Amino acid sequence: MITKNTIKQIASLRQQKFRKELGCFVVEGRKMTEELLKSDFETVGLYATEAFLSDYPSFAEAEIVSELQMEQMSGQDTPPGILAVVKTPQQSEIKTTSRLVLALDGIANPGNMGTLIRTAEWFGIHDVICSNDSVELWNPKTVQATMGSLFRMKVWKADLPDYLEQAKDASKAVYGALLEGEDLFQMQAKPGGILVIGSESHGIRKEVLPCITHPVTIPRARGSMTESLNAAVAGAILMAEMTR
Amino acid sequence: MITKNTIKQIASLRQQKFRKELGCFVVEGRKMTEELLKSDFETVGLYATEAFLSDYPSFAEAEIVSELQMEQMSGQDTPPGILAVVKTPQQSEIKTTSRLVLALDGIANPGNMGTLIRTAEWFGIHDVICSNDSVELWNPKTVQATMGSLFRMKVWKADLPDYLEQAKDASKAVYGALLEGEDLFQMQAKPGGILVIGSESHGIRKEVLPCITHPVTIPRARGSMTESLNAAVAGAILMAEMTR
Repeated sequence: MITKNTIKQIASLRQQKFRKELGCFVVEGRKMTEELLKSDFETVGLYATEAFLSDYPSFAEAEIVSELQMEQMSGQDTPPGILAVVKTPQQSEIKTTSRLVLALDGIANPGNMGTLIRTAEWFGIHDVICSNDSVELWNPKTVQATMGSLFRMKVWKADLPDYLEQAKDASKAVYGALLEGEDLFQMQAKPGGILVIGSESHGIRKEVLPCITHPVTIPRARGSMTESLNAAVAGAILMAEMTR
Repeated sequence: MITKNTIKQIASLRQQKFRKELGCFVVEGRKMTEELLKSDFETVGLYATEAFLSDYPSFAEAEIVSELQMEQMSGQDTPPGILAVVKTPQQSEIKTTSRLVLALDGIANPGNMGTLIRTAEWFGIHDVICSNDSVELWNPKTVQATMGSLFRMKVWKADLPDYLEQAKDASKAVYGALLEGEDLFQMQAKPGGILVIGSESHGIRKEVLPCITHPVTIPRARGSMTESLNAAVAGAILMAEMTR
């Protein structure tokens, strides 16, 4: 039977501090848990309510907890009834295989981070490099927004200017989403290389700019008064076009 | 001087119930308030802290409130220091002028709703039709996610099946984002008409499907295990391509 102490520990994983300390994060919901269990991630605890298990008996390996216990552990307003505790994987050496690699420079919103990862997978981009100051990957909102892609993608943290500098030295194309660059829809080739998306509030940082070999712009309609696009939206439009 | 009662009323506008009852909604932040004041929307109250006004003296018309009073009114964790109360406009008769009109079928997430409106404006789409059950436009998260586009766009609520039926009868093209449709990148013309985006969890509804004259699909990379794209992301990719 689950102890009060375990419940308390799992609840504490809502905070980054305790995720770091305990080396674990939480996954909730049927679909996400299914994807988790199919992956190489190490599940260290799996809990479900009786109501959930009677709907989804295939999760029989889960430990049964009461609705109240689930509420105490869950970070969601309406707990989906299944919750897994997952060991945070150690970061492996960066070894990209995708023709186009996504690089995220200071993405701060967990929903955007998760959505960018999910969108990358849709378009066959399997490698994502995040700057060290990007929002934490194991934040429950990031995990949720990936809709399971997190468990199939390769996501690394890196000193982004350093990483891109090396890529540039190795003659890789480094595309950067900027307000003044080549028109995305006029670009000739279907390019490989690295696509850099900047943060929600500041775009691509000064330190990263010198590494961009190909500034690229999503053209705005004439007369439009919008100043920018949402970072996940801009990333998605670029990925869609550059992987065609 | 602002009364306790006014502060309480403004704080109550975080809830849809009171927004409806009082016919008002709240806008926060410098940029958003600037866009508001340039628009035709009727501002019924404008409040700022002294600290904010010393940074941005152009908002001198705002009534000064204390930091504590601002905190009590604000719906944000870190109040930006300026807050406006705005009269919810009456809905006008639907009269679209854009070549491509965006129709949203049951979008439930306020962030997605706001992002779709912001993205539409970027691409020169000025008319948005939302199904009656879409998330409320005056929700603070929707307002925020539009990043000011809300004040320049035309957004209507409508019985969507009914509206689309009429459009179809008038020989308009009704494009629908579906998992099985024509490949977006193979589509010939730069199309005008109506683009329908379905809800986050259920896509385009059964009642709306018969109105779709052109199902359209964002092609997924071979072997990708993702089941869908985020609704705002899918909408953005479609708008980008269909307004080229």
